[in-house]
Amino acid sequence: MVISNTKTPEITSPSLIEMAQSTQIAARELAVLSTQQKNQALGAIAHALEAHTKEILAANEADYQKAEEEGIPKALLARLKLGEKKLKTAITGVLSVVNLPDPTGITEIHRQLDEGLILKRITFPIGVLGVIFEARPEALIQIVSLAIKSGNGVILKGGKEATQSCNTLVEIIHQALAQTQVSTNAVQLLTTRSEIQELLKLDKYVNLIIPRGSNSFVQYIQANTNIAVLGHADGICHLYINKVADLEKAIKITIDAKTQYPAACNAIETLLVDEEIAPEILPKLAKALQEKEVELRGDSQTLKIIDIKPATSQDWATEYCDLILSIKIVPDLEAAISHINHYGSKHTDAIITEDPTAASLFLKLVDAASVYHNCSTRFADGFRYGFGAEVGISTQKMPPRGPVGLEGLVSYKYQLTGNGHVVATYTTENGKQLEHKDL
Amino acid sequence: MVISNTKTPEITSPSLIEMAQSTQIAARELAVLSTQQKNQALGAIAHALEAHTKEILAANEADYQKAEEEGIPKALLARLKLGEKKLKTAITGVLSVVNLPDPTGITEIHRQLDEGLILKRITFPIGVLGVIFEARPEALIQIVSLAIKSGNGVILKGGKEATQSCNTLVEIIHQALAQTQVSTNAVQLLTTRSEIQELLKLDKYVNLIIPRGSNSFVQYIQANTNIAVLGHADGICHLYINKVADLEKAIKITIDAKTQYPAACNAIETLLVDEEIAPEILPKLAKALQEKEVELRGDSQTLKIIDIKPATSQDWATEYCDLILSIKIVPDLEAAISHINHYGSKHTDAIITEDPTAASLFLKLVDAASVYHNCSTRFADGFRYGFGAEVGISTQKMPPRGPVGLEGLVSYKYQLTGNGHVVATYTTENGKQLEHKDL
Repeated sequence: MVISNTKTPEITSPSLIEMAQSTQIAARELAVLSTQQKNQALGAIAHALEAHTKEILAANEADYQKAEEEGIPKALLARLKLGEKKLKTAITGVLSVVNLPDPTGITEIHRQLDEGLILKRITFPIGVLGVIFEARPEALIQIVSLAIKSGNGVILKGGKEATQSCNTLVEIIHQALAQTQVSTNAVQLLTTRSEIQELLKLDKYVNLIIPRGSNSFVQYIQANTNIAVLGHADGICHLYINKVADLEKAIKITIDAKTQYPAACNAIETLLVDEEIAPEILPKLAKALQEKEVELRGDSQTLKIIDIKPATSQDWATEYCDLILSIKIVPDLEAAISHINHYGSKHTDAIITEDPTAASLFLKLVDAASVYHNCSTRFADGFRYGFGAEVGISTQKMPPRGPVGLEGLVSYKYQLTGNGHVVATYTTENGKQLEHKDL
Repeated sequence: MVISNTKTPEITSPSLIEMAQSTQIAARELAVLSTQQKNQALGAIAHALEAHTKEILAANEADYQKAEEEGIPKALLARLKLGEKKLKTAITGVLSVVNLPDPTGITEIHRQLDEGLILKRITFPIGVLGVIFEARPEALIQIVSLAIKSGNGVILKGGKEATQSCNTLVEIIHQALAQTQVSTNAVQLLTTRSEIQELLKLDKYVNLIIPRGSNSFVQYIQANTNIAVLGHADGICHLYINKVADLEKAIKITIDAKTQYPAACNAIETLLVDEEIAPEILPKLAKALQEKEVELRGDSQTLKIIDIKPATSQDWATEYCDLILSIKIVPDLEAAISHINHYGSKHTDAIITEDPTAASLFLKLVDAASVYHNCSTRFADGFRYGFGAEVGISTQKMPPRGPVGLEGLVSYKYQLTGNGHVVATYTTENGKQLEHKDL
């Protein structure tokens, strides 16, 4: 193995290694199943979840009561609570993954290197995913369906508040899979926090870690594993109102991008306003935002126009996840782009303008996974992009970048088929050239 | 920045940070140049290298003499030596990159989310590459052309024996770039080994590290950086001779795969032979291999058929990079696949068989970047795959996997263009559905 673990070679729990080995074996079997076989497994899961609704909701209710007694914050309680409606939506989600195209087995390159020597590049599952997610039971259902459809095994670790919900869900999923071609070992659940440490060492068996959570959590994971990490992280997103903006659009989009769901990673944290239109638009914008109970913090130039709290330099680097917005006046497009490239988290940034040249420059020069023109940053989402679902949003520069759905969960293999072909035929001395004809 | 450095936060050399910053700025400018502008820069480089041939060869001669005096191994000396012919080939290589299609600006997704709300996914450069390569001056020329054509800035560090050659080459490349739209800052050279340490900390400016070298070197890099690493590593490649093999093909391919260039990472280290045909083929194979001076090491079953050195369990995990081959007899296809998946390095593995079912199973079930049927593993190479060139061969499972050429050096951006579109329109309460119509 080239990619072996030099940082943390000692593994303490043999049972976890065995479990990961069994997931790897199950994943290799799953990788070569037909689309129909994988869809059958998803159908069985959807059916079983529906049949065991009562049991699932009871387990979730127990988690909820325990969490409530422990006094966890209301926002987290709301996420933890499953309820019949959310469960139904999640089951519909499983069935919608059935209808998505299989991301594996797609021929990306088909090339004749020479007579009878045929190269194909074919998409193929990554192997085993390690997904660490928040205390949100329906996330488990979604992750499992995406993993199975993309042909990957998955080792899950949910937030501890959802332990009973996750246990019950995986038990039901296992019962369902037992009647299909997908091995139950393809889906595994870790139940203790200490197992995360161990998971990070299993680079021989786990091919991609997907940590969902805070920036600091994702950073912690990256600093402690040699396994590839898909950084599903929060975002510092910007909206820049250019001097040639349509003011009505600007206000409407600002309100949506900040207030429609302020805790989402694709909500904006900073508004950049061109100095030429700031005196006209800022009072109107401030009024509209304050009506939505948004706390505003402005730079010194902004404070000359509207009476709000001053922003500190810290504000430009802060993701509030709340009804707070920092506002900065910029001299021009270039300054806006430069601010975004300096403070942004490469998630999603938008420009409001009626000037196509300004829009085009912004889309080209802003270094982010998603760059928008005249629409709300809140569209940055796998469902909205039409991926059917998402495991997360990557703010890394290497693919998969941005919202990651099924297609982001595959890699590829090169297959070369010959008829006794050897390289010696094509060396300089022997002179024969490869032809590289795309088929 | 989401992907910040928690492992090694202290950076000691401000000059290196400044250099990396300037590369990032240059890379952002380079990223939006036209194909023609990038090709002009490549043309200027090729021209300048040709015009300064004498100077380059003199610098290389000085490196060579110093290395010879220091008594470095012959194989390394051969790699270090540039000479007129190798330089000419490298210059031709630059011009061939001009003719390769631009990997950036390609629309991968074009989708109408709703009337007037258009999503595009467009390939885009990664940013800044950090490439650490062996003392082989022509590698520098190739890496620079691939970086420029793919729109990426590059920070280079060559093997120390090639210091003068690299300095001279970069000086000439800078002179050439000075007359083009590509900033000279897009190509930078590190000259001391200690700077590698520093480079690994620059995750704010460097987006991908490509270490070329031994397994242990690649592992060291991975364990010491939070930057994404493209593991260009050596390989433990296998050839499996199935019971339904054509013996003539089997022998011809074995000889090519082992002896045509034994130091290459795509040469085989272990031969697996089906027990049914072992008595017939092994004596012939051994004779052919021994004529090519290959040292053979066999498992106990092999030793019953041919008189060679015994192999130890260590042999199955060893990349010899030399004229040594370990041989193991396996009971069937399944055992061959299982041995490869256990000991292989996910680089390139091949089957020799006339049985299409066995071939198909092998290609599906062997977990490697390249899987071959009836041809030599030595084909695993970016040039031979028709990529025009390669920066290395990745043995990781996440893309880019296998030989990485221009196309592997790009990421992508999502661009969404609307006309005042907000998410609130499409929430459950408001009911409007996104249409996701591919254009």
